[in-house]
Amino acid sequence: MPRTPSRPETLRESQRHAPPPQLDGRLRVAIEGVTPEVDCGRFPIKRVVGEMVRVEADVFADGHDHVACRILYWQDARSESRSVPMKPLGNDRWRGEFRVMNLGRYHYTIEGWVDRFDTWRDDLIKRIAAAQEVQVELLIGAQLIEAAAARAEGDDADKLRAWARRLRAAKDNESAQALVRNDDLSSIVARHPERDLISRYQRDLGVVVDREKARFSTWYELFPRSCSPEAGRHGTFRDCEARLSYVASMGFDVLYLPPIHPIGRTFRKGRNNSIAAGPDDVGSPWAIGSTEGGHTSIHPALGTLRDFRRFLTKARDHGLEVALDIAFQGSPDHPYTRDHREWFQMRPDGTIQYAENPPKKYQDIYPLDFETADWRALWTELRSVVAFWIDQGVRIFRVDNPHTKPFAFWEWMIGDIKTAHPDVLFLAEAFTRPRVMYRLAKLGFSQSYTYFTWRNTKEELTAYFTELTQTSVREYFRPHLWPATPDILPEVLQTGGRPAFMSRLILAATLGTSYGIYGPAFELCENVPFQAGSEEYMYSEKYELKQRDLAAPWSLKDFIARINRIRKENPALQSDSELRFHEIDNPSLICYSKATADRSNVILIIVNIDHLRTQAGWTQLDLAALGLDATHLFQAHDLLGDGTYMWQGPRNYVELTPESLPAHILTVQRWVRTERDFDSYV
Amino acid sequence: MPRTPSRPETLRESQRHAPPPQLDGRLRVAIEGVTPEVDCGRFPIKRVVGEMVRVEADVFADGHDHVACRILYWQDARSESRSVPMKPLGNDRWRGEFRVMNLGRYHYTIEGWVDRFDTWRDDLIKRIAAAQEVQVELLIGAQLIEAAAARAEGDDADKLRAWARRLRAAKDNESAQALVRNDDLSSIVARHPERDLISRYQRDLGVVVDREKARFSTWYELFPRSCSPEAGRHGTFRDCEARLSYVASMGFDVLYLPPIHPIGRTFRKGRNNSIAAGPDDVGSPWAIGSTEGGHTSIHPALGTLRDFRRFLTKARDHGLEVALDIAFQGSPDHPYTRDHREWFQMRPDGTIQYAENPPKKYQDIYPLDFETADWRALWTELRSVVAFWIDQGVRIFRVDNPHTKPFAFWEWMIGDIKTAHPDVLFLAEAFTRPRVMYRLAKLGFSQSYTYFTWRNTKEELTAYFTELTQTSVREYFRPHLWPATPDILPEVLQTGGRPAFMSRLILAATLGTSYGIYGPAFELCENVPFQAGSEEYMYSEKYELKQRDLAAPWSLKDFIARINRIRKENPALQSDSELRFHEIDNPSLICYSKATADRSNVILIIVNIDHLRTQAGWTQLDLAALGLDATHLFQAHDLLGDGTYMWQGPRNYVELTPESLPAHILTVQRWVRTERDFDSYV
Repeated sequence: MPRTPSRPETLRESQRHAPPPQLDGRLRVAIEGVTPEVDCGRFPIKRVVGEMVRVEADVFADGHDHVACRILYWQDARSESRSVPMKPLGNDRWRGEFRVMNLGRYHYTIEGWVDRFDTWRDDLIKRIAAAQEVQVELLIGAQLIEAAAARAEGDDADKLRAWARRLRAAKDNESAQALVRNDDLSSIVARHPERDLISRYQRDLGVVVDREKARFSTWYELFPRSCSPEAGRHGTFRDCEARLSYVASMGFDVLYLPPIHPIGRTFRKGRNNSIAAGPDDVGSPWAIGSTEGGHTSIHPALGTLRDFRRFLTKARDHGLEVALDIAFQGSPDHPYTRDHREWFQMRPDGTIQYAENPPKKYQDIYPLDFETADWRALWTELRSVVAFWIDQGVRIFRVDNPHTKPFAFWEWMIGDIKTAHPDVLFLAEAFTRPRVMYRLAKLGFSQSYTYFTWRNTKEELTAYFTELTQTSVREYFRPHLWPATPDILPEVLQTGGRPAFMSRLILAATLGTSYGIYGPAFELCENVPFQAGSEEYMYSEKYELKQRDLAAPWSLKDFIARINRIRKENPALQSDSELRFHEIDNPSLICYSKATADRSNVILIIVNIDHLRTQAGWTQLDLAALGLDATHLFQAHDLLGDGTYMWQGPRNYVELTPESLPAHILTVQRWVRTERDFDSYV
Repeated sequence: MPRTPSRPETLRESQRHAPPPQLDGRLRVAIEGVTPEVDCGRFPIKRVVGEMVRVEADVFADGHDHVACRILYWQDARSESRSVPMKPLGNDRWRGEFRVMNLGRYHYTIEGWVDRFDTWRDDLIKRIAAAQEVQVELLIGAQLIEAAAARAEGDDADKLRAWARRLRAAKDNESAQALVRNDDLSSIVARHPERDLISRYQRDLGVVVDREKARFSTWYELFPRSCSPEAGRHGTFRDCEARLSYVASMGFDVLYLPPIHPIGRTFRKGRNNSIAAGPDDVGSPWAIGSTEGGHTSIHPALGTLRDFRRFLTKARDHGLEVALDIAFQGSPDHPYTRDHREWFQMRPDGTIQYAENPPKKYQDIYPLDFETADWRALWTELRSVVAFWIDQGVRIFRVDNPHTKPFAFWEWMIGDIKTAHPDVLFLAEAFTRPRVMYRLAKLGFSQSYTYFTWRNTKEELTAYFTELTQTSVREYFRPHLWPATPDILPEVLQTGGRPAFMSRLILAATLGTSYGIYGPAFELCENVPFQAGSEEYMYSEKYELKQRDLAAPWSLKDFIARINRIRKENPALQSDSELRFHEIDNPSLICYSKATADRSNVILIIVNIDHLRTQAGWTQLDLAALGLDATHLFQAHDLLGDGTYMWQGPRNYVELTPESLPAHILTVQRWVRTERDFDSYV
């Protein structure tokens, strides 16, 4: 119920209620619902050089006036902004796009304004159609054009003044209409809006622009110490040089090395992660640091810093870029434990806290204490480790367990490094909870490990890759797929044999634009677990030197080379945005396609995910996703098996046998009939 | 490819790369995905006094440490904040809630921190289960409890110190475990987190808290000038007083009057909106202003300001609150056109621009020019109009065409008025594009007209009311449903006859917690359009005085009274949040339910939306939404038709005849069997 009427307001009271001085009440345009925008602009989106940024927004004003809007974008604080007009999609939604051409950070936002001229023009045409008297309207239009001329310069100003004159001189509706229907006039006026009546979106949004390898890369993980040709001898960088042509021949472009630093002796782990190491046990490369040095030192058994730099050059000559492992933790012998005890958590008994995930204990690893009062010095030091390797020529880092270090550290460190070195890439090895993985990507990681390793069924793969590629996740999270890692030999490989290795490789190489294998374990189909129910390898390379027969007849090396060549030759496989799943009436067959935006390259993939039995089924293709319609005859050529099929319509028969080739990788091309074909088909 | 290695960094260079001074790197908790949050917190959510605000967020830290979090909320800048703990929902999602008890603005945000004690406690239990040595762990725990004690005071501090002592003295794992498993200990420690390690969500979010009528109201729109008992005489406020008991008897609680101000004479419209008005034509109440005054004057034919205030009091005595119309525009005779020509748009010929929507012209209306350089004075004046009527005792305003005035004006004006008068409500009459309607609601309108007027089919109603009540729209947009207005006689009423009036009323009164009718036109089923294809009434009350026979035998007044009594007696119908649509196998029948959160009041509604034919069908009830399961026998009692049905399971038969009663409004109650019932049923 209303209160008792209060005393009427005096004039002074009403003055107190004037609009606040910082407000400009004449700005009438609302801008909302902007995409892409990650967490209200808290984080940038990601692109690679040459890609488009397509921006959409709801832009509207009060009343019936027309609005206009544009994207503003600029590369850094110093550079001038450019603008690109947005076009209406209907229902107050607008879209525009711009291309990012340089490495580094871009920014974008949106400006909108009431387009008085366009409103007037549209109204005038309606008035003329209704045969209304428009003399006064023509004067209003001339004033609007003259006002635009006053804001313009040079040629634009001259043209606008001439138009205004002609409008003022227009003798009848017909000549007036001809004048205003000129699209040239509209576009020149649109270039000169009233600056102080432009509404600007309240946030500037960011884009991190990386080089193309951030999107499309093919990784090979290799323990350098296992590259020795002689059994039992610790491999060196020189030995690794001899391995380069083998890796390159399979079509990889990134060679990722587990940590290459001195390894601790205290609590060193023996074979199969045993607590008691023998004198010859080499230890885990992730137990970093000894009297021989820490994160900026090279394990003496591998060679010298000079050897390492030479290895980088040789790798480059083979088209391979070396990625280093960043594992911010120390062995009990790490120089930090001596010089920076303040960076570790001390226990009441005076010992340093080792890594634990109770009840499990990792006595050979000391985690850094990021809650130390001295965190600024710690951050600065860790950043300098990355800078050190950049100085040696490394430009890609695979970061071990980033989810166990603070988010703020990564955001600062990656941002700071990339300001100076925008070509540097970071891959997050975070097998953890979904929100943590996404957060790390938002914070700056260029690529991210995924749950692909454990997604096996058609439903799992479809749901997961739809989430990764068709939702806003794709704006900041670049998936990197590993069928196996030194830490994870998934159950599907343990039980599925060589066909499982083939099918998982095809899935990784075609569902992901970036993927990697842990070699040579993978191509040799090593699949013996430490014990039943474990994902650890038996005699894991993490704890011992390995020697392998790279020429084993069951090696997948030629198969891998073929897959990687298909990836290189087909741009459809180098981007995720057009990934579409198609129906196929057999749960053991999964069918999906990738395409370039212009559909000039379309790849259709069908994989048998049953590694034991032949499976057959009928596709129900989404023809539009393939750039086809039901009337089109199309050729499906198998890049893997070399077969060629002439298909039409969505339903086509497929049969795949795991032992021979568990998949089709088909290029799909519309068959353009010649007259002669036409005669024979119809 | 990597660049040539650059010169190694010097120490000085690395110092340049220290983390920025404003950053605290030890804050490890991320808070994101907060709901409710309207447009990144740009706008407040809405509640009424006594309602809950349920807040959810993703809250997580790096690593395996447990986190804790809480909602902070406070009423205004001066009041102290309160906190309420959030509980985990799994997968890093957390939820908490608080109740808003006072009118005005509340604010809320979230704090999160690493819960070292809870992490330690959980780890300790695992260590003990693995029979590990925990003496050092107990010391660590004692230190954590002592640190909490140091942050606590009084009783909490004493208790914590005692616990720490007992932990230090614990002789064995069993006694230690007993100590830490005590939930009391955990909750006391949780009350005293380390203040400087608390992460706070980056935004403070707002809640506008209105009185209950903002959510639940029943409106009757009445032209006071048509209340005269004598044909042809202009009605007065005194005449309206005599109408109050009639309106109140139908169960309405808001009486909304179209503008009550002097009406312009220049270009006054005649009957049926004709351009030439005769000397006796009364004109449209929305053509505000004459020599007799403007927006703060009363039309002399209605009475005086004193009469109006007396009318407010009389209305209140009948349980009716008067809502005034706010139409910010003038007739050509409005005092503003004389005293404030700068508030109107001038044409080059020296005339004031009248309202147009080309080719349509409204010469009797001058719109205000909100782009005037003098906009500050204009805003201040318009605000003072609202303040004037508040001073007379009015607390509800129905705003005419708010979408033709700038968004920024409404946000400022409503915000400013509600700061002083948080009990004032504004209803937006915006029949315009969806984004504009939602924007106006976000800006501060307490209730909003909807598209209900034109949503007729089951699909349309289901989709629209799902959007309004089950998406984030419900946080800021309070739907107000009108089956018809003086401007809109929808086609369904023109063709459906009395059954259509009944069914549309039931839909409005049960799909909407707030609805209104334009009376007495509605209860008398007036449905003659101005012409075929028009939504205007023939002889529209907007342009002439009306006299009606309120006792007409076809009047729906008793039916309306019954519906409104059902609304008042059933809290389920006073809130939208639990609206659920149920399947029914006939496209002409729509079935939905509303319920209180605790399911103590459950209403099931089935409406025949075919106004010509009897329709029958089988329901497929979502029993869970009704608080039932398939084993429950339940009684469905028709509050409209008085029938009672004993039902079980989702499938039940319904048949509705439009001429008699086109709907069931059923209270649904589980039938609790007595022993005797049990014997007879089983």
